[in-house]
Amino acid sequence: MICDRVGGMKPFLAMDILERAQELERAGEHVIHLELGEPDFDTPQAIKEAGIAAIRQGDTHYTHSLGTSQLREAISEHYARAYHIDPPHPDRVLITSGSSPAFLVAMSTLLGSGDELILSDPHYACHPNFVSYLGAVPRTIPVFEDDGFQYRLDDIRAALTARTRAILINSPANPTGTLLSPERMAEIAQVAATAPSRPWIFSDEIYHGLVYQGRARSILEFTDHCLVFNGFSKLFAMTGWRLGYVIVPRDLVRPMQTMLQNFFISASSLAQAAAYAALTDPTVRADVAAMVRHYRERRLFMLAGLRELGFGIAVEPTGAFYVFANAGRFSGDSNRLARDILEEAKVGVAPGVDFGPHGEGYLRFSYANSLENIGEGLRRIREYLARR
Amino acid sequence: MICDRVGGMKPFLAMDILERAQELERAGEHVIHLELGEPDFDTPQAIKEAGIAAIRQGDTHYTHSLGTSQLREAISEHYARAYHIDPPHPDRVLITSGSSPAFLVAMSTLLGSGDELILSDPHYACHPNFVSYLGAVPRTIPVFEDDGFQYRLDDIRAALTARTRAILINSPANPTGTLLSPERMAEIAQVAATAPSRPWIFSDEIYHGLVYQGRARSILEFTDHCLVFNGFSKLFAMTGWRLGYVIVPRDLVRPMQTMLQNFFISASSLAQAAAYAALTDPTVRADVAAMVRHYRERRLFMLAGLRELGFGIAVEPTGAFYVFANAGRFSGDSNRLARDILEEAKVGVAPGVDFGPHGEGYLRFSYANSLENIGEGLRRIREYLARR
Repeated sequence: MICDRVGGMKPFLAMDILERAQELERAGEHVIHLELGEPDFDTPQAIKEAGIAAIRQGDTHYTHSLGTSQLREAISEHYARAYHIDPPHPDRVLITSGSSPAFLVAMSTLLGSGDELILSDPHYACHPNFVSYLGAVPRTIPVFEDDGFQYRLDDIRAALTARTRAILINSPANPTGTLLSPERMAEIAQVAATAPSRPWIFSDEIYHGLVYQGRARSILEFTDHCLVFNGFSKLFAMTGWRLGYVIVPRDLVRPMQTMLQNFFISASSLAQAAAYAALTDPTVRADVAAMVRHYRERRLFMLAGLRELGFGIAVEPTGAFYVFANAGRFSGDSNRLARDILEEAKVGVAPGVDFGPHGEGYLRFSYANSLENIGEGLRRIREYLARR
Repeated sequence: MICDRVGGMKPFLAMDILERAQELERAGEHVIHLELGEPDFDTPQAIKEAGIAAIRQGDTHYTHSLGTSQLREAISEHYARAYHIDPPHPDRVLITSGSSPAFLVAMSTLLGSGDELILSDPHYACHPNFVSYLGAVPRTIPVFEDDGFQYRLDDIRAALTARTRAILINSPANPTGTLLSPERMAEIAQVAATAPSRPWIFSDEIYHGLVYQGRARSILEFTDHCLVFNGFSKLFAMTGWRLGYVIVPRDLVRPMQTMLQNFFISASSLAQAAAYAALTDPTVRADVAAMVRHYRERRLFMLAGLRELGFGIAVEPTGAFYVFANAGRFSGDSNRLARDILEEAKVGVAPGVDFGPHGEGYLRFSYANSLENIGEGLRRIREYLARR
């Protein structure tokens, strides 16, 4: 009755944790949320005002199926400025209702049944689900904590086949917080360029801007044979607005547009107006810098706290807002451990196995929460570990 | 390079007309838009205020993947009140970013490769594209102007096969404005209930409330073996907010939730707050009634005007905001005719063939525009027809 393409999709365990946590809260419990991939900050004021102005002005109608030209131009200029590259033509920027639909449209366009996409294990939980939904095959490559969960080039080369249509990179990464070095990105671009199946590079750049050491680089600095996925949710604390985008080669615009027209009509007009302010209003830059300062401080606090509790962190993550910590000392069953921590300590954490079989034995801790809450969460986990 | 599932998708001709019209406008031309499936009205004030309040209050985060319980309860109560039925349990109401993603998720869950869905010809242009995207088969049944484009029961029966998984109804219909009679809906429910493949009824109720004679009935009054698709775009003039929903049997909630979590995370938090006001604020009812009065007046005006120009309207449409007029007297090539009317008369109209092969020879005129604009549009078309 339920089709395999959906019935075979893995439930998203971190979402189950969240929804169970909300049940506990409705029952009067106080829960600390370290399971969320979502900024705890409010959307910056100028962005909110732009959204409000759009509503007041009656900017509440469908937009062009690819998005407003104003926003597409601002994104083009943002990429040119941030990465010192020629601006990708605004026609190549496609606006979507979050970056997830951008993945759906891109993969639907490029991954046929039986085609393969290479991605790391662990990876963002939803990525392989898009692939298998389409009847394509996620080819996972394990990455290891001892070199900071970096892709190993030889493993990518070994995974290439005649059906490899894309290599997915995600820097800074969910769940590991890893930043790919520019050298590694150049090498991956080179591997893709010389592979017989000429795979695309899909670069998930949603955590760009949230970097605490070094600098995130865009795949557009290294190759044109790529699709760049990004959005406003993380850096600008705009998750509830649902706005993302994808930058694609010109040949892909028209087929992807057909799918966007049919399946989405357009993204939210008011979210687009708000997102334009995110990229252009000077006060937003200061607000984002303040958020990054907070994440920076929380990151150090959480790293120290987790180590003190006995979690393993071989290489410190330098981006996004996650620590992917080795919990092998406490349990080999991360889902069970995460559920126990929620039920017993009233702290939500994401089980590592959510992010791939090679994530088993780890927990993902998000520091998109206040120092006070992180401290309280760590205290509760300490007590839980002491009494188990 | 482009997968068949997307490459084989028909472009949406009405969108091409719109986008060409916008090009003309950027070049300084004045275009009358009668091609749009979108209210020209502003979103009612109380809805806008609720959206603004949500932004101000920082209600800008992910919601539950199925939507806020507040909105889901309001939808349940709305259905109970409007159709005198037992309230569908709020757990069965799934909130989506517009009704299009609801179709994608529902069809992905229920239509396997090679399965069949029955729909009318003409139909909403995107409906068969969802089906063929999934490798399923749209089985179209021609409907005819001489009985107001009503489904013919015998034709549905004749189209049933062992692979028929769903029958799609859409009342009031896009593009024809047809309202299905309660007797016809009961019969279709009966046909579905007794067919060996036990097809679902997919009822697209997005134009409910926009009815000028008679009353739209929900499929939930006739059967439980159904999915109801609806949203806020049309009745509440909220297209740019992107908010829809689907009411499903309990067994389908969990598999559809998995897909929603993965592909959409959640619908817009602020749009959900605004939609709650749409269903509960008493001033919205008056605003909607005023919009319906306008549509009612425009409908009569447009019907008279089109007939005077020589377009054929055998049975007057009684719902939505469309007239599907026979243009056979002027051309057998509706796409060519629509393009000529745009280029020569600067009036956007939707070509009938966009809505299925059996729509060829027709044009769809939308009266979601002011009396003044409709009058000017008809005047321009009269001049164009006189000189061609």
